[in-house]
Amino acid sequence: MYKISKLSQYNEKNLNVYYCKHLDFMDIKEKFGLKLKTLRKEKGLSQEKLAERSGLNRSYISGIEQGKRNVSLEVMEKLVEALGAGIGELVDF
Amino acid sequence: MYKISKLSQYNEKNLNVYYCKHLDFMDIKEKFGLKLKTLRKEKGLSQEKLAERSGLNRSYISGIEQGKRNVSLEVMEKLVEALGAGIGELVDF
Repeated sequence: MYKISKLSQYNEKNLNVYYCKHLDFMDIKEKFGLKLKTLRKEKGLSQEKLAERSGLNRSYISGIEQGKRNVSLEVMEKLVEALGAGIGELVDF
Repeated sequence: MYKISKLSQYNEKNLNVYYCKHLDFMDIKEKFGLKLKTLRKEKGLSQEKLAERSGLNRSYISGIEQGKRNVSLEVMEKLVEALGAGIGELVDF
């Protein structure tokens, strides 16, 4: 799995340049964030909807998906309940 | 899976009384703690050895196994590296 990020500094002539970060080079928070984002989109949920269902703040969810948050067991539980997924799916990376 | 705990207050006539708590009634921290303890024992490691390998404090590991700690992703990573397991195994409950 790859994390695709936009490098805006290389945006020339209306051409967006992206780079791929391979899963092997992501830290655990980035892997978790990417997995959450993937699962959320598979379920057709917006960050707002996931926030509402889980009781977590939308900006906190955004931070998780960006790989910035060191998520705890209790937060994982809220996320999997809101997603209707198993916790194993969320750390399947 | 069951968590077996000793109820010392019911210890009468040299008979130890145990109770079983079914996995369904454990919270996520207790489930994680039991899973960690099971995996650690499967690997033939003492809490001291796991502490040494993971760089975590032995009393912190004891707290995790007792279901008292809300473990984060980065701590899980240290544990799975020390156990030689996958993170999925640690949350397979």
